[in-house]
Amino acid sequence: MNTVSIIRKKRDGKSLNEDEIFFLIDSYTKGKIPDYQFSAFLMAGYLNGFTKKETAFLTKAMLYSGKVIDLSEIPGAKVDKHSTGGVGDKTSLILAPIVAAAGVNVPMISGRGLGHTGGTLDKLESIPGFRTDLNLKEYNHVIKKCRAVLIGQTKDIAPADKLIYSLRDVTATVESIPLITGSIMSKKLAEGIDGLVLDVKTGSGAFMKKQKDAEELALSLMNTAKSFKKKVIAIITDMNQPLGNYIGNWFEVYESVKVLQGEKVDDLLEVSLNLSGAMIYLGGKAKSINEGIDISNEMISSGKAFKKFLEMVELQGGDISFLTDLEKYPVSKYSRQIVLDKSGYIKTIDNYAIGMAALELGAGRRTKADKIDPKAGIIFHKKIGDRLKKSDPVCTIYTDDQSVIDNVVQKIQSSIGLTSQKVKPPKLIKKFLY
Amino acid sequence: MNTVSIIRKKRDGKSLNEDEIFFLIDSYTKGKIPDYQFSAFLMAGYLNGFTKKETAFLTKAMLYSGKVIDLSEIPGAKVDKHSTGGVGDKTSLILAPIVAAAGVNVPMISGRGLGHTGGTLDKLESIPGFRTDLNLKEYNHVIKKCRAVLIGQTKDIAPADKLIYSLRDVTATVESIPLITGSIMSKKLAEGIDGLVLDVKTGSGAFMKKQKDAEELALSLMNTAKSFKKKVIAIITDMNQPLGNYIGNWFEVYESVKVLQGEKVDDLLEVSLNLSGAMIYLGGKAKSINEGIDISNEMISSGKAFKKFLEMVELQGGDISFLTDLEKYPVSKYSRQIVLDKSGYIKTIDNYAIGMAALELGAGRRTKADKIDPKAGIIFHKKIGDRLKKSDPVCTIYTDDQSVIDNVVQKIQSSIGLTSQKVKPPKLIKKFLY
Repeated sequence: MNTVSIIRKKRDGKSLNEDEIFFLIDSYTKGKIPDYQFSAFLMAGYLNGFTKKETAFLTKAMLYSGKVIDLSEIPGAKVDKHSTGGVGDKTSLILAPIVAAAGVNVPMISGRGLGHTGGTLDKLESIPGFRTDLNLKEYNHVIKKCRAVLIGQTKDIAPADKLIYSLRDVTATVESIPLITGSIMSKKLAEGIDGLVLDVKTGSGAFMKKQKDAEELALSLMNTAKSFKKKVIAIITDMNQPLGNYIGNWFEVYESVKVLQGEKVDDLLEVSLNLSGAMIYLGGKAKSINEGIDISNEMISSGKAFKKFLEMVELQGGDISFLTDLEKYPVSKYSRQIVLDKSGYIKTIDNYAIGMAALELGAGRRTKADKIDPKAGIIFHKKIGDRLKKSDPVCTIYTDDQSVIDNVVQKIQSSIGLTSQKVKPPKLIKKFLY
Repeated sequence: MNTVSIIRKKRDGKSLNEDEIFFLIDSYTKGKIPDYQFSAFLMAGYLNGFTKKETAFLTKAMLYSGKVIDLSEIPGAKVDKHSTGGVGDKTSLILAPIVAAAGVNVPMISGRGLGHTGGTLDKLESIPGFRTDLNLKEYNHVIKKCRAVLIGQTKDIAPADKLIYSLRDVTATVESIPLITGSIMSKKLAEGIDGLVLDVKTGSGAFMKKQKDAEELALSLMNTAKSFKKKVIAIITDMNQPLGNYIGNWFEVYESVKVLQGEKVDDLLEVSLNLSGAMIYLGGKAKSINEGIDISNEMISSGKAFKKFLEMVELQGGDISFLTDLEKYPVSKYSRQIVLDKSGYIKTIDNYAIGMAALELGAGRRTKADKIDPKAGIIFHKKIGDRLKKSDPVCTIYTDDQSVIDNVVQKIQSSIGLTSQKVKPPKLIKKFLY
């Protein structure tokens, strides 16, 4: 096999076969192909695309660059959820205990926040003592004990993805649906799952701004999952404003606990229950998504879901006293209510700007090396469709870094659009794809 | 300036401005941008193209990555020729002395052979003692003394081109007209020329197989030359069979000397005279290309051109006794006449295969590190349109390497197509572009 001829083939818009793709990924992962050849290949692939078959080959090659976890000795179905990420998206914390309480195993390998989106690992690590760096033996132990586990990507899992993602990041080849598919699915398939529910977000705070693109990504992910004989459902959901009212790592744990304790945070609950319903259905514990939603509601109202959450947190080393007494957690040095000094109905929220504002407050990272302040964040009091009086605060920000406050206030003020006419809140669940 | 955003811009099909292109080329040449980012940029440019303006900016940035030779103290016009390369293409050796004898300066910086095409430097170096590695002081001295000089690319000349070309070679980004334009023109403009004649070849032995592509390349080169206020003429010429009858480094010097001494090698003479005529015209020593051709003929018949060639060779250290007594040169250990064992008119010659056959005999290089045998080569006895009897040799091969002979004989035999009908030889001069 000759690297230059394979690059040339993709450059000329031809399809690569499994051997060629395997050769490229395997050689690159082993350091036998230099970065500069692989990046030329990535750009050719970005511009000329990959077929469904090629995408499955890419995923397979990336998957088998590392370990594929075997959970076959654990009885029952294993179902995970993947979200393409957004602002205030804390559904994993809510649905994992719900689904596990309903009898379906939830083996989750999750990521960290970068840029405007948060990461589940960072949120859980805001609980003092919580460990996301379990090894695979500990991973098996936790899931066996409580049917849910939530860890970070180990270096054994799809190492090709880690290498390729770093290169894509610096060569303007990130936004490619087949490459995103390979990246997501190689990690998810390594978890040892039988089924997967996809939450593909669309809107100003999502990676895919347009619903058309979100659906395209969903179909690509589903095609690949199916080619590996996995059950899969995708739900296209709205990300034109924060999900729930709390943004920031501890804040999102806080709101998740509230929801698990029965508090009605409408939008957050609706998305979480649709996802958990679909997971319970794929896991064979319900005959339909709707029945799965009913079961999910039952898991909350009976207290079983919250109990399961405490069980999982404890097994992963977290101090659950912070969860049973939420107000015990330290509070940021500074807070500021943000008022727009105008009245009207909230029509739009630039959700990307909100995510970046949370980052500036200390809740996120610009680069992988940045440190996070778990307390920092934003609490929204009004959302799209709500009427705002001149003196009403739209949200409150929390930070230990006084120097960023003025800038963040300005950013949030200019990210919110008002109108004099009544506004309907955006439809949350836009589409189901099977 | 941010490298990733510039790559993204080109990836998205947008045009880059002069600052952006200068930043990329300058930073890459200085080692501030890694290969993997530059190769992603090259692939994006390969696939999305560059405008005329961008091509001129690329050329300018590559040109000013190094020294631009100043020949302004030398009186009279300075005109060079560039050929896109082919098999048996020795016109530089013939036209440089003709044009210099006619009173126009010919400052030539030339390349080496690679793959199926030969290189002028290798040909001249087959003359014992000939030095192509003159420094810029010696270069100025030779052109002042005899109005013609022929050296290799020094490391001061367009160093960006050298770096970028090496990267293109291993990332499948060679065959891009704007990138080829930048590579050729940055070197040519560094020579200190006022005018340039382009010999853009088309056919089975050329880089551009189709005339349409050759014309496109010619126009791109001309546009760029004009944007630097240089006079330029392009001639599209045929490369469907070797030019002249001799292929191989010393063999091509031999045939060139014969032509300079008045021998009528029709096709070689026709191309050489059109090019030298155009150069003399651009140099202001003729009122038209045709008058330039008349003057060229005069330079040959008067012996002035050959005398000029001897003068240049001597100034560059060459032993001219090999030129005044051509038969003194050593001869290959082995030779073999190639007979097709069929009769008919020669209709086609796979000229790429002929170039590769010459390479195998020792006349060329597969990689830059390969050594050349100056004696090795092929002498053709019959060309397209000629009638071949069953026992007629079509050519004779010469080599010191007995092991390659059978393979080369087979390769050449299968590269020649016969027909029973009369065939017209291909039109040599296909088009003039001003």
